[in-house]
Amino acid sequence: MEPTRRQLLTRIGVAAGSVAMYQAMTTLGHAAGTDFTGPPALAGARPGTTVLVLGAGLSGMLAAYELRRAGYSVRVLEFQNRSGGRNISLRGGDSLTELGGYTQKCEFSPGNYINPGPWRIPYHHRAILHYCKAFGVALEPFIEVNHNAYLHDPRSFGGKPQRYREYLGDFTGYTAELLAKAINQNKLDQPVTADEKAELLKAMRMWGLLDGNYSYKKGLEASLRRGYDKPPTAGINGAPTPSDLLARDEIMKSGLYQYLLFNMSDDVQTTMFQPVGGMDMIGKGFARQVGDLITHNIKVTNIHQDTSGVTVTYADQNHGGAVTQAKADYCVCTIPLPVLSQLDVQVSNEMKEAIDAVPYASSIKIGLEFKRRFWEEDEAIYGGITFTNLPISVMSYPSTGYFSKGPAVMLGGYMFGPAAYDFAGMTPQERVQEALKQGAQIHKQYPAEFSNGVGVAWSRMPWTLGCCSMWSEQARRAHYKTLVTMDGRIVLAGEHASYVGCWQEGALLSSLAAITQLHQRAVGAG
Amino acid sequence: MEPTRRQLLTRIGVAAGSVAMYQAMTTLGHAAGTDFTGPPALAGARPGTTVLVLGAGLSGMLAAYELRRAGYSVRVLEFQNRSGGRNISLRGGDSLTELGGYTQKCEFSPGNYINPGPWRIPYHHRAILHYCKAFGVALEPFIEVNHNAYLHDPRSFGGKPQRYREYLGDFTGYTAELLAKAINQNKLDQPVTADEKAELLKAMRMWGLLDGNYSYKKGLEASLRRGYDKPPTAGINGAPTPSDLLARDEIMKSGLYQYLLFNMSDDVQTTMFQPVGGMDMIGKGFARQVGDLITHNIKVTNIHQDTSGVTVTYADQNHGGAVTQAKADYCVCTIPLPVLSQLDVQVSNEMKEAIDAVPYASSIKIGLEFKRRFWEEDEAIYGGITFTNLPISVMSYPSTGYFSKGPAVMLGGYMFGPAAYDFAGMTPQERVQEALKQGAQIHKQYPAEFSNGVGVAWSRMPWTLGCCSMWSEQARRAHYKTLVTMDGRIVLAGEHASYVGCWQEGALLSSLAAITQLHQRAVGAG
Repeated sequence: MEPTRRQLLTRIGVAAGSVAMYQAMTTLGHAAGTDFTGPPALAGARPGTTVLVLGAGLSGMLAAYELRRAGYSVRVLEFQNRSGGRNISLRGGDSLTELGGYTQKCEFSPGNYINPGPWRIPYHHRAILHYCKAFGVALEPFIEVNHNAYLHDPRSFGGKPQRYREYLGDFTGYTAELLAKAINQNKLDQPVTADEKAELLKAMRMWGLLDGNYSYKKGLEASLRRGYDKPPTAGINGAPTPSDLLARDEIMKSGLYQYLLFNMSDDVQTTMFQPVGGMDMIGKGFARQVGDLITHNIKVTNIHQDTSGVTVTYADQNHGGAVTQAKADYCVCTIPLPVLSQLDVQVSNEMKEAIDAVPYASSIKIGLEFKRRFWEEDEAIYGGITFTNLPISVMSYPSTGYFSKGPAVMLGGYMFGPAAYDFAGMTPQERVQEALKQGAQIHKQYPAEFSNGVGVAWSRMPWTLGCCSMWSEQARRAHYKTLVTMDGRIVLAGEHASYVGCWQEGALLSSLAAITQLHQRAVGAG
Repeated sequence: MEPTRRQLLTRIGVAAGSVAMYQAMTTLGHAAGTDFTGPPALAGARPGTTVLVLGAGLSGMLAAYELRRAGYSVRVLEFQNRSGGRNISLRGGDSLTELGGYTQKCEFSPGNYINPGPWRIPYHHRAILHYCKAFGVALEPFIEVNHNAYLHDPRSFGGKPQRYREYLGDFTGYTAELLAKAINQNKLDQPVTADEKAELLKAMRMWGLLDGNYSYKKGLEASLRRGYDKPPTAGINGAPTPSDLLARDEIMKSGLYQYLLFNMSDDVQTTMFQPVGGMDMIGKGFARQVGDLITHNIKVTNIHQDTSGVTVTYADQNHGGAVTQAKADYCVCTIPLPVLSQLDVQVSNEMKEAIDAVPYASSIKIGLEFKRRFWEEDEAIYGGITFTNLPISVMSYPSTGYFSKGPAVMLGGYMFGPAAYDFAGMTPQERVQEALKQGAQIHKQYPAEFSNGVGVAWSRMPWTLGCCSMWSEQARRAHYKTLVTMDGRIVLAGEHASYVGCWQEGALLSSLAAITQLHQRAVGAG
C-alpha cells in the first residue's frame, strides 16, 4: 500500500507546530515494530568468495559477522579510529572533533556518560535485542514516561512547568467531561445505540473521574490521578487535601498534549531498554565478534566495479594517507548517504540519484553534568523526560544510578529541525551555555549545581554529516526500491536503507536484507 | 475536609464491577504521595526511659531504630521467627504454614522469588525511599505499565486477550472522534469560545490520530500507536501495513478501560521501584540496624498499663511457652488489628472500639515458576501487568532478569474481594492449579512450561489475619483519630494507623507519627 506518513506528519505538524513536526518526523513518523524472527540462514556460500564491507557501524559489523558465519571471506574498512559508528557514548577523557575545527573534551566524572546518538531501544526491536543477548550486552530499563517530570511551554501557565501527572489528569478529566455531556444530551451525530450510549457514559465518568453530574472538578477524585495539595499521610491530621485544577482553555491552547500523545506512540511504549554502562556497549559487543576483520582510519574515495569484482580505493591514514586499493567479489556499503554522495561510486544512474535524494536530519544532543541528582533529591524525578517548547525540546534524567550520591549527567537538550541548525552554528561551549540558560527556566538548581557539559552537533560529524535519513514520501516512492536493491556487486545497508530510519534496528534489518541479496546473487539464486 | 473516598470508590465500583471496586479500594482508593521530609528530630529524651515495641515489621523496626537513636532504651518483641512482617519474599526452600494446617514449601530455582506482600514502591513514597537509601537497600525500576501485555475479558472480543497498546489506541481514537464531531457541530452544552473550539478540535484531531474528517480509521496513523499488521522493516518490501481496529461498542462494553485508568493513578505512576533481589531486602536492611533489639517467637497475650508503666505478658516460645512479663515506660504496638482485637489490651473503651472497627482485606498472591521466560521470548513482554476480568485479576511479569535463560517466576494472580475468599478456601495446591487453569486462557504456554508454584492467602496468615486495613469512611470518621492518638502509655503504629493504608509507606509514616507523640509525652511536652 502507498505510505501516507508524510501526510500524517504534516497533519501533526499543522496541529502542533514545528517542534512536534520534527519530533514526529524523527520518531513517531518512523519505525514501530519489526519483523525480525531470527538470523538469516545463508547456506551454500562458495568458499573463497570475498566481501568488502565499508563502515564499521552496527550495520557493517553485523554484515561482517553474518557473512563470515556463512563462509565468506570478509574485510571491513572504517573511516574513524573506532568502531560503532553512531552507536557512541561520551565519557570523561573522550574528545570529539567536528567540522569547523572545534574539538571538545568531555570532563564527566568516572562512571558517567551521555549517549549522543541512539539512547533507547523499543521492546519490539527484535533484531537489536536478539544480538544484544547473543553478544552478551546487558540491558536495563530505559524510563521514557515520568509522571512527575514536567511539561513546559514558556507561553502557557505563566511559563511555570507543569507536572506531567497534573496536565494528564486535567486533560483527561476535561475531555471526558465534554464528551460525557455531549453524549448525555444526545448530541452525537453518529448512530449510537441506547446501550452504547449508556456504556459510553459509564466509561467517561470513570475515565474522567467525573462527579455525579459528569463534571470534572477539584476534589480527592481528581487528585487520585493528578496528585494532592497535601498528600495523605499518618498521624491525627493525616487526611489528604485536593489540588487545584489547571484551566481547560490553557491546557488546550498550550498544545502540550502533543507530548502525552508522543509517549503513547509505539516507538516509546514500555518496556524500553538501554545497555548497562552506555549505548556503546552494543558497538563494543559487535566489535568483540568482528574486530579482527576491521581496519580503522581508512578514507574511501572510489568504489568501482566490473564483471570480475569490486575495487575500493582509499587513503590509508595508518600509512601517511597512502592511496591503496582493495578488491573483493562483492561490497556491502554502509557509508551514510551525505558522505557517500560525495564519493566516486560506480553504480547505475538510478542508484546515484537515490543516494543523492535522501535528506538527512540534523540533530543536537547536550549532556550536562551536575554536582548532584537534584532532580531526584529535590523533585522526585527518577528517569524519564521533561518536554518543553523551548528550543532544547527534551530534557532527560538518567535511567540508571538512581539514588546515588555524587555528580550525574542528564540530557540537557535534544533537538531536531531549526533549533538543531541554530545550535550547530554555535561553538560546543555556547551550546552548553544556551542549554543551561534555557533549562534553568525549568530547574532553578541549574546554575548552582552545574559542573561541565558537551554539545554534539550531528551535522558537523565528518563521518556522517547528519543524524539520520529523513525520507520524504516522494523520495520513498521514487528511490527507495532502487536504493535497497543490489546494484551489480554493490549493495547498500544502514538505517537509511530501511523503513526503520533513525533507529539502530533499521541499520541491522537493512544489513540482513542486504547480505541476503548478496548471498542469493553470490550463489546464483538472485 | 471530609474525605469522600468511599463515595468515589462506590462510583468506580458501579462503573466497572467488583473487580475494579476491590482493586480501587486497595490501591487507587488509598494513598498517593506522602509528606515525609526527613527523619524526626527527637531531642531531649531522658536517659533510661524504656520502650517496648510489639512487632518487628517495618513500623516496629523503624520505631526501634529512631527511638534508640534518640536515646531511648528499646526492646522489640516479635511473634514470628523472622523479622519484616508482611515485608516478605519466598524463595526455594522457604516454607509457609497457614491457619488450617497447610504448609507449603516453595520449590523455586535458585535466584527466583515472589513477593507475596508488598511488591512495588511509588516514587513519591519518600519515607521508604529515604530509609532504603540510608540502610543500603539497592532499588531497581518496577515496570507497571506494559503496552505489549494484555487486557483480557472472557466475555469480550471472543475471549481473546487484547494487547494493551491496541485497546489504548482505539479507546483514545474513538473517544477523540466522538468529541471532535460533537465540537465541530457546536453540540457542546457549555460555554466554549470560538478560539477554544478551534483549539479543542486541533487537540482531538492530534490526540485521536484522526483523519481530515475527524474520523478514527484503520490506517498507518492509527498504527503509530496501536501497532501494525506488518511492521516497517528493511528490504524491498519494507513498507508497513496497518492493523485492524477493534469495534467501538465492544471496547466500551468490555469496561477494560478501567485498567488504563488504574495505570494512570498516582499510586502506580512511573517511576516505581522494587528492591534488587526481593522485597524482603528492605526488612533485612531494617533488621541489620535493630536486629540486636529483637526477640523472636514471642506470643503476646496481655498489654496492661498503669501510671508507672506498661506491662506486656507473653508466652515465650523460645522457652517452652513460659508465661513471662516485660515492663517498660512506654509501648509502641504494631500488632495488626485483627490479632490485637483478640488480645487483652488495657486501653480506653474508645480505643477498643477503634481496634475492633477496622476491617481487613483478604488477598491472595500466586507465584508460578515456569521453565523459561515465554512471555519475553514468544510475546515480547518485559515486566508489567496483564489485567483480566477472570478471578486471578492480575498477572505480572518479572521486572528483573530480563532476557535471561532458565526458569523464571511470574505473578500468576493477585486478588482482593470475593475471589480472594474463594482462593483462601482452597488448599495451596488448588490455588496454584486454579491460577494455571485461568491463566492458560491468556498464555497458551502455561501447561507445557509450568514447573511449580505457591499460593499465599493473607487471611490465613496467623500473624496478621488479613492483608491490610480497609477503612470505611464511616469508620474513619468515628475511630481514626482515637486509633492514632496515644492512649496513656501505649501508642499504635502500622499501615492501619495512617491514610496510606496497605502500603509500606503507611507503616513507616505511622511509626514516625507514633514515636513523635511518645517522645512528646515522655519529655512532658505532649
